[in-house]
Amino acid sequence: MPFVQIAILKGKSPAYARAVADAVNAAVIETMDFPADDRYQVVTEHEPAMLQLQTREGDRVMMSLVMRSGKTDAQKKAFYRTVVERLEADPGIKRENVMIAIAENQNIDWSFRDGLAQFVP
Amino acid sequence: MPFVQIAILKGKSPAYARAVADAVNAAVIETMDFPADDRYQVVTEHEPAMLQLQTREGDRVMMSLVMRSGKTDAQKKAFYRTVVERLEADPGIKRENVMIAIAENQNIDWSFRDGLAQFVP
Amino acid sequence: MPFVQIAILKGKSPAYARAVADAVNAAVIETMDFPADDRYQVVTEHEPAMLQLQTREGDRVMMSLVMRSGKTDAQKKAFYRTVVERLEADPGIKRENVMIAIAENQNIDWSFRDGLAQFVP
Repeated sequence: MPFVQIAILKGKSPAYARAVADAVNAAVIETMDFPADDRYQVVTEHEPAMLQLQTREGDRVMMSLVMRSGKTDAQKKAFYRTVVERLEADPGIKRENVMIAIAENQNIDWSFRDGLAQFVP
Repeated sequence: MPFVQIAILKGKSPAYARAVADAVNAAVIETMDFPADDRYQVVTEHEPAMLQLQTREGDRVMMSLVMRSGKTDAQKKAFYRTVVERLEADPGIKRENVMIAIAENQNIDWSFRDGLAQFVP
Repeated sequence: MPFVQIAILKGKSPAYARAVADAVNAAVIETMDFPADDRYQVVTEHEPAMLQLQTREGDRVMMSLVMRSGKTDAQKKAFYRTVVERLEADPGIKRENVMIAIAENQNIDWSFRDGLAQFVP
């Protein structure tokens, strides 16, 4: 947890995509009190016309996270702030070009491996 | 808001994909009282076997929206109705071949730019 | 219902992708009391670096489901268990390499066809 889907532009290098994924993951771990190995990410690449972030152009990131209910407003705000700082640092994406949406669920709604509900044993 | 993910068949023209995205966006703005520039969309393309809408064949659209809690049933119904009308008009997708699912979240769950939580300043 | 998004590795055969989708669908129908024709799935394929399931390697599946509130913990647990059993049987994916996240919504949040809210007529 969380499960993060990250949409970026097509045609970037593997290093670019990796930097985006790493930046998001680092922000998750650092700001919302998740375990260090809590990395669950799917990164997808899209033609510019398929990635509509209002009228914004150039490098951009649209991400959605599913996570358990319970994180505070302060934690979420710290996450937003840290994500854009890290994406600006590497791979160099403008802060205005990052959109984030969170959806929450409950303990029973997760199975991380082995077909078990790890939060509801 | 809302954040809309739209899955269509692969192999269509850019104009087709654009028409789908425009139709959905117009319906969002028109029926659910969102600002005119509130466009946040990711469009993805899939082989027919990867886009399973029961046993329905031919052009089809499966979309999911994340939006803040608060829209009325009447607004959502108007959205559904308008989306299929517009998709039927352009690019010509049958009304029976459009599936929509909405998931709701809260004010704190959005950052549209700059790493800020715009609804919880 | 439910709406299921399934992310797998790129480069697999159509039969592999189909087996994954079929396994998930069978588990949904079998364990959570959905109608037999309730299949709504989008399968996506990703480079290994784009499909980050902690540090797990090799064949893996990350899936998210949106479904109406109301399924019991027992049903969800049965679903998790059955999914990994079926994916292990065909196409042969290790149980430890399957991640599942569920998000819930309400009756009004679905339109399966024709622009109608089928659960709120």
